[in-house]
Parts: sequence; C-alpha cells; structure tokens
Amino acid sequence: MSDDTVGGDFAAEAGDIGQQAPSSRDALRLEQLREAASAAGFDAVVLTPAATMTWLLGQEFEAHERLFLLIVPTSDAATAVVPALEEANFRRAAPSVESLHLWDDAEGPGKAAADAFRRLARASRVAVEPLSLRFMEFEHVRRELPNAKIESAESVATALRLRKSDEEAAMMKRASKIAEAALEFTLRDVKPGRTEIAIASKLSSELLRRGGGGISFGPIVLSGPRSALPHGVPDDREMQEGEFLLIDFGTSFDHYHCDITRTFVVSGSPTDRMREVYEAVLQANIRGVAASRPGVTYDYVHKNCQANLHAPRFREFLTHRTGHGLGLEIHEPPSVMAGNTEVVEEGAVFTIEPGLYLDGWGGVRIEDNVRVTSTGCELLTSSRRELRILGP
Amino acid sequence: MSDDTVGGDFAAEAGDIGQQAPSSRDALRLEQLREAASAAGFDAVVLTPAATMTWLLGQEFEAHERLFLLIVPTSDAATAVVPALEEANFRRAAPSVESLHLWDDAEGPGKAAADAFRRLARASRVAVEPLSLRFMEFEHVRRELPNAKIESAESVATALRLRKSDEEAAMMKRASKIAEAALEFTLRDVKPGRTEIAIASKLSSELLRRGGGGISFGPIVLSGPRSALPHGVPDDREMQEGEFLLIDFGTSFDHYHCDITRTFVVSGSPTDRMREVYEAVLQANIRGVAASRPGVTYDYVHKNCQANLHAPRFREFLTHRTGHGLGLEIHEPPSVMAGNTEVVEEGAVFTIEPGLYLDGWGGVRIEDNVRVTSTGCELLTSSRRELRILGP
Repeated sequence: MSDDTVGGDFAAEAGDIGQQAPSSRDALRLEQLREAASAAGFDAVVLTPAATMTWLLGQEFEAHERLFLLIVPTSDAATAVVPALEEANFRRAAPSVESLHLWDDAEGPGKAAADAFRRLARASRVAVEPLSLRFMEFEHVRRELPNAKIESAESVATALRLRKSDEEAAMMKRASKIAEAALEFTLRDVKPGRTEIAIASKLSSELLRRGGGGISFGPIVLSGPRSALPHGVPDDREMQEGEFLLIDFGTSFDHYHCDITRTFVVSGSPTDRMREVYEAVLQANIRGVAASRPGVTYDYVHKNCQANLHAPRFREFLTHRTGHGLGLEIHEPPSVMAGNTEVVEEGAVFTIEPGLYLDGWGGVRIEDNVRVTSTGCELLTSSRRELRILGP
Repeated sequence: MSDDTVGGDFAAEAGDIGQQAPSSRDALRLEQLREAASAAGFDAVVLTPAATMTWLLGQEFEAHERLFLLIVPTSDAATAVVPALEEANFRRAAPSVESLHLWDDAEGPGKAAADAFRRLARASRVAVEPLSLRFMEFEHVRRELPNAKIESAESVATALRLRKSDEEAAMMKRASKIAEAALEFTLRDVKPGRTEIAIASKLSSELLRRGGGGISFGPIVLSGPRSALPHGVPDDREMQEGEFLLIDFGTSFDHYHCDITRTFVVSGSPTDRMREVYEAVLQANIRGVAASRPGVTYDYVHKNCQANLHAPRFREFLTHRTGHGLGLEIHEPPSVMAGNTEVVEEGAVFTIEPGLYLDGWGGVRIEDNVRVTSTGCELLTSSRRELRILGP
C-alpha cells in the first residue's frame, strides 16, 4: 500500500471517528495507529517519547536515559513501560492506556520491560520509528522479543501524521505569527558592527517572550560570506554594511513548529549581482509555492521551484532540495526534492526554501511554509519577501 | 577494567598529550577515544552527532534525518559519512579527519556509507552510544558490517568524559552564573495570580538574553500541589499566596550545562509542615554535598544525603535518586543512587537534588551541582538555599 493510499484511508476514518460517541483523544489516535500498523502487517508498534507519542497523547514527553516505551499491539490493548517519576503525567495524557509497567531507579527497567512485552511473545514483526528509537531501547525490544523482526515504522506513523487538520494548521499559523513578530522586533537592532550571535540571542529571547514554545533550532544568523553556509552556526563576526544577512529560525505553538528564512541586506546598498541572486531565489520561492497542489509529485514541485536556479548565470552556485515536511517535528516527511515521486496530498505541510550559495561570496535563502488545500496551497507564513535593506 | 581504572589511565594520558607537539584538539581526543576503545576490545567506535562528538570536535552538530557518522577504527584513520551541506562545518571542526564520504539528497547516503565502512569489513566488535545512535543509523551499521557485533560503548566514551577539566568546570560555572542571574530577575515577577507558564517564559527569555546557550530543558515551574510532580510541565495555573513554587531549570555555556532547582513560597507565610519539609530537604542537600568526595561510592553519597528523608514523619512522601552526572549533557553518568557502587572520582560533576513529594499537597526539591576535588567537592552553583518568601 502506498503512503498516498494510507493517508487517504485515514483521513476518511478520522472523519468517521469525529461522529462517534466521545472518547479520549489518545484512544482515537491509538486506534488509528493500530489499524495502520495492522494494514502494514505489523503485530505491534513500539514508540519512545518523540513526535508520534506527542501526536497520540497531546503532551510531550522527553527521551531521557530512563526506559519509556508505549507498546501498541495491533490486536490487544496498549501497554507502557513508564519511569515511576512520569506516572502522573502519563496517566493524565493517556487515560486509555490502563496497563502501565512502572519502574524506579532502585529496581531498574528490566522487570517492567519483561512484563510489558510478555503478551507479545509470539509477535513476528514489530514496527519502530527509525529516527527516535535509540540503541538503548532497541536492545530492550530485541531482548524481550528475540524472535520478532524489528522494522522501520515510517510507513505507519508518517502517513497518519502527514495531513494536518485545520486545528493543527492553526497552531502552525500561531507559531509563525509569534516568529514573525519576534523577527521584526529583532531587526531593529541590525546595523553594521552587530554580531551574528547578538542578533541570534535577541531573536531567541523575543521568540520566548512572545509566547513561542521554544527555539525550534539555532537560530541560524549568518552575515556576509558566511551566509553561504547552509547549516552555519552564528559566531561573533560583526556584520558589515552592504552585506547579506541570512536568518533561519522557528518556534512552536502547542508543539507545532514553523520554520522561516529571510535574507536581508545590512545598510548601504547591495551590488547588482546581489540583487540578481536575490531576485532569482525570490522567483524560485514564488514558483515553488505556486506549484504546490494536490496530485502533482514532490519532484514536480522541486523542479518547478528550482528551474531558474540552474541557469548558466548561476553555474557556480550551490543549491539544495526545495523543502521538507513540518509539523510536530521541524524536519519530517515529505522531502520536497528531485526524484521524490510521492504525490502531494491535501493537508500536507512543508517548507519551500530555495537557496543559492557561493563559497566565499555569500548566499540567499527564502523559506516559507505551505499547507496543501483542495486546489493549491495556503501560506502559513506571511512576512514580506522582497529584498529589504536594514538599519541606518 | 572498571570505569574507575579507565578514567584514571586517561587522565594521566591527557597530561602526557599536553606535552606533545601541538596538534588539533580533535586529533588528541580521537586518539584518547581510540585507545579507550582498543582497551575495551572494540575494533571501532561509531558516533552520531551528540555529546561525545561535541566533546571530540568542540562544536555541536545536530542529529537530523540525514545520515552523519564519525567512524573511529582502533587501528586505522578516522573517517566520516557527512551530508554535503555539513561539509564546511565538519572540516573546520575536524581537521584531522581527512577521509570524508559526502552525500547529497539527490544520491542518498547508501554509497557514502558503504565506502566509509569498507575498510572495517573484518571488524568483529563495534561500539555505539546507546542513547544517541538511532535505529536509522543502526540499520546502516548493521547493513555494512553484517558480521560485527554492535555493542553499547558506554564504558568507552563515558569514562573519557566523566572527569571534567578546570576549563570544562569554568564553563559550567559560567552557565550557573547566567542561570542564577536570570532566576533572580525572574523572581521579581512572582506574586499570587501569576501563571506557571508566565514565569517559565520569562525565565527562558532571561536565560537567553543574558548569554545562556539555550534552555537546557523545560524549564519546570510548578506551584502549589503541582510542585509534587517531579517531572511536571508548567501550565496556566495561577499561583496562590502561601504555596510552594518549584523552579527547576538550566542553561549552557560553550555546550556545558548547569541544572538548578530552588523551591520558594509565594507571598504570605508557609505552614509549619511546609517549613518542616523544606528544612528536611535542605539538610539532605547539605549532607549530600558534604558526602561528595573521592573514594566513596555513589551509594554512600545517596544514603548520606537521604538518610533523614526516610524518617517516619515523612513516611507518606515520595523521594527519588539523589542526582545525575552533568556536563555536555543534562543527564549523563554517574547516577547518584542507591546500589551504585561505582567510586566517586576527582573531577566528576553531578547534581545533588534531594526532594520530598506528596501527591495533592506539594513538593520541595533543592538542587545544586558539585565537582569533586582531591579532598571533597566544590559547588558550581551558588544561589542561596534557605527558604525564601517571594512577592509582596
């Protein structure tokens, strides 16, 4: 079954569930997960504290060094291995999970894990999440279920989380509003002589002061030639007049993230070459947004976005994929890139973030977040995209 | 070989290295890691972007969805699988790692991984970090080295990172200074009617504004009966006069963390029972710090700390382990708890954080960070510990 089909089935199912007798959120979503896992031929899904658990429970638990597992068999009640310290929080978030195997630091997690997996002894295929299950947890699963094949669950949870509801999109818009207001306030401080770190610190502080749920990453603040580092880290370099200033940042609201990049010029005036590069990236951004609609492939979105970035006049510049999925995680499926023939679905949220980078010269990236509608897409981000010159 | 012995050997070795011809930081530390892995019988260590990589390279890389591995064979040069986007940052941080296998989104990581592991084809034991290697990376290692036993490397990297140098301790003290100043400023806002979230948000913002390297976790801000939740999350509950207010938070400086908890009373006056519970936890904190010295066991530190918390008058209260190691990670070895017979070593940094919690009533925790010296320990945290009544 393709991801496409799975997503479709579950969107329909979510609608049905909405008309059922009221139940707890965790019970409804556990049932969705159980059915997806069953359809994919798994006997159980084993989750650790990470985004899919947040999606299920509506509350975020952190993956510390203590064993914490939510075990969802496809034909039995869910059970969990929970550090005793987390019991109260977990019971509140997961009222439908009645079978908890608690452990404390004095006894260790061994017995709780053995008890929790006992009823799965005959499982032959168990799904885990490849980017959240760690070797520590893997070893427990392998020890308790020595006869089971432990496999990546990407096809299970990803499809369920791919299509964002109106409620989820509203959270992401609120995150964007907070982020954009924090950025505008921070930009007042930009002028020649300011360090990248000072601007990054100010922006981080503003994100939190305005109610952002955290600093989603970085933030990345890079000036002058350093703007050519797609994953650069701010340092104490002082920005100069007439340089690029690239700011890539995000925050969350109720666990849902935004991820925005804008590139500015610090005072003075940009060169013609800077204007030309900026304009090419801006047009790529606009074309990428315009190409995002249901039924096309991610490869199509990518190629439409980046067509002009590969023109001869940008031959020496580097580019990268167009974007990535966004939601409870800052990077989640889909990948908007060449060769990805998955079909864009209504409800999918992803970034459109074309860029052009030239080592030693500088780079431009302009990143927005879109949610696919029935006919096209809506922008979740709204700050202006045309070239701006900051400071005195 | 016990962790104790390994730690001792490597501390001596680090001294020797200091007298060698100058070399890059990454080369020196890679050699330490290589020798520790060799002594433990491994053919290689495979690291992902996490604290041990930060310890090696002095720069933090993030574990995204892209495969990023540093492979350190015990008898060959280190090699790495690096997403093309990270090449510039990685080369700067790891000048001694010459063999890079780069990959980009268009081609995927498969060939780079195969090339990187080729010279290890005959490895029989490979060490990985159980709390950072994910299933995604594990599958790559397993695929490329099907005949190797993949094992937890805790005994290798942990021992190297356990003893903190004066330089590392200085970073942790700076983190504490920033944290304590941010807390003092934030406390001015505490008064009846303020929400937990408002105080948490203010504290987070202040940590960043004052130069903290991030919000290490939470922060945890819990008032009244909610202070009994050892891992509670702030919500919009308004604090009331005469209640406990528990604040557990941290930040970092140059990647090194602090982790501090203080419990206050909001305005008014505490009951006698509140004073009694607070005093018991304070004495436990003081006794825990006093018991922290080289040569005793972590079990001894724990029992000395918590002896009085198990008195009959606190029978209904819950407690937890005394503390955890702290450094590049907020939770790292050692675990200061009952039954841990590992010996406390000079240079070890850990938290002393006794607490008493009663469901529905409230809780008190007082947490400081200590570094073991040749004869006892020094406090890295310095804010006052006696009971304080905040607000008007």
